[in-house]
Amino acid sequence: MRIIRTIPELHAARAEARAAGATRVGFVPTMGALHEGHLSLLRAARAENDVVVLSIFVNPTQFTDSSDLDAYPRTEEADAELAAAAGVDLLFAPDAAELYPAGYATTVRVAGPLTETLEGAGRGQGHFDGMATIVTKLLLAVLPGTAYLGQKDAQQLLVVRRMVADLGIPTRIAACPTARDQDGLALSSRNVRLSTAERSRALAIPRALEAAAALVAEGVHEVAPLREAASEILAAADVAPEYLAFVVPESLAPVESVTGPVLCAIAARVGEVRLIDNVVLTPTPVPTKE
Amino acid sequence: MRIIRTIPELHAARAEARAAGATRVGFVPTMGALHEGHLSLLRAARAENDVVVLSIFVNPTQFTDSSDLDAYPRTEEADAELAAAAGVDLLFAPDAAELYPAGYATTVRVAGPLTETLEGAGRGQGHFDGMATIVTKLLLAVLPGTAYLGQKDAQQLLVVRRMVADLGIPTRIAACPTARDQDGLALSSRNVRLSTAERSRALAIPRALEAAAALVAEGVHEVAPLREAASEILAAADVAPEYLAFVVPESLAPVESVTGPVLCAIAARVGEVRLIDNVVLTPTPVPTKE
Repeated sequence: MRIIRTIPELHAARAEARAAGATRVGFVPTMGALHEGHLSLLRAARAENDVVVLSIFVNPTQFTDSSDLDAYPRTEEADAELAAAAGVDLLFAPDAAELYPAGYATTVRVAGPLTETLEGAGRGQGHFDGMATIVTKLLLAVLPGTAYLGQKDAQQLLVVRRMVADLGIPTRIAACPTARDQDGLALSSRNVRLSTAERSRALAIPRALEAAAALVAEGVHEVAPLREAASEILAAADVAPEYLAFVVPESLAPVESVTGPVLCAIAARVGEVRLIDNVVLTPTPVPTKE
Repeated sequence: MRIIRTIPELHAARAEARAAGATRVGFVPTMGALHEGHLSLLRAARAENDVVVLSIFVNPTQFTDSSDLDAYPRTEEADAELAAAAGVDLLFAPDAAELYPAGYATTVRVAGPLTETLEGAGRGQGHFDGMATIVTKLLLAVLPGTAYLGQKDAQQLLVVRRMVADLGIPTRIAACPTARDQDGLALSSRNVRLSTAERSRALAIPRALEAAAALVAEGVHEVAPLREAASEILAAADVAPEYLAFVVPESLAPVESVTGPVLCAIAARVGEVRLIDNVVLTPTPVPTKE
């Protein structure tokens, strides 16, 4: 595995790989502090490509909360070991001056409900502006055939897909399922900041999602009782959600009943740590008469 | 010459050309109504590349004045003949729905003085947002080695260079000198809308620029007398400039004296037609003692 710090080095490595016959390039963009969720993305990339590129860059422009940026875990040595073991060929780990040199002035913005609701409302438009811009820059630097993103950041996935389609970036975006710990908590680099007591409270988030899914499986299709059940579980753990949303997965438009796939998404602060999670609810098929 | 209407067709044609051994792709983005200025860009592209791609698209999102958009000349048949004669291989002429399909939501913005001053102040930030977005889309669709732009739109050239560098689009931006009619008027697709009397008044614009350049050549380096001379020529033709600017060519920061290259730029409405023109002033060398 080669560790690469600059875009020209990355281009050279990519050209070298192509000259050596590598045609399929898979890419996993991350902010480091790698966990099993990232590793599952890398496994998907490894299985489908000749060259696997991993980027690690804690992108300052997508943090609208500077204390979150400061506290974001940085574990580059451990990350490099995990990456090498996962079969990464090129680890792109630039510093901020490489990606935002003096005079830098360009932003990629996806407008509308995809960025204004949920995370956009909670973290501010600057979050998705920063994210869309860095992902555009990384995709143009790596030029992968496929980029692998996690379903845990469902809205990020939607925004990236919209931006890639709109600008015509020649990359396919593949979504991978949310990885969870044995206790059900969605894996996140921020989880290490939870105390034991906070972690136990945080489990109310996946349990609330599971409860909604279980009710849908039992034939409850109105959102009101789903919301009530999920809210009660969160409240019992003293977790006040920033949002508990039931929305169309492609448009993020709110729905009142589960007549097709519905994204149920939660954001909540537990202690100092802001957590997000989601599940796609699918209505039980109406039994046909025999 | 092939006329191409969709991005997938364009990708296929590009792949075909590459397979046939064409490695150097030159690109000239235009809004059509081709004149000698565009043809000079095409000649530069033809001289340096295996494949020359011309785009013709009157981009609605960069017009902040809808009457200007409506009045913009559209002469596609004549354009196609000129393009073929100029050795264009691929003429990309999509409609708006191809570039902005339903649900389109992405904008590329270059912030700061490059887009807020001069044309940005006069036409609104929307102008450069629309321009930066469409040029990003066209560059990603064509993926040229070199794109050729005219120095007449000096600020556009700066914004495109900034955006290409910031996003890491793998295209070199080549600037070509402003083409002028025999009477000195900078060529523009909008010139056809000038009456004979308006055209005669419009000549005050290049004359004002020439007067400033002549004074600099005579050793005048303070901006105040240059501005006065240029203003007098404009006023004598009853042309009220929207701006008459003396700025650093790379940053557009205003200057008070010509100690290095200075961009002198004018925008003015003559009748219904908004015209722009510019010249780069270079200070006369200080005579060395012998």
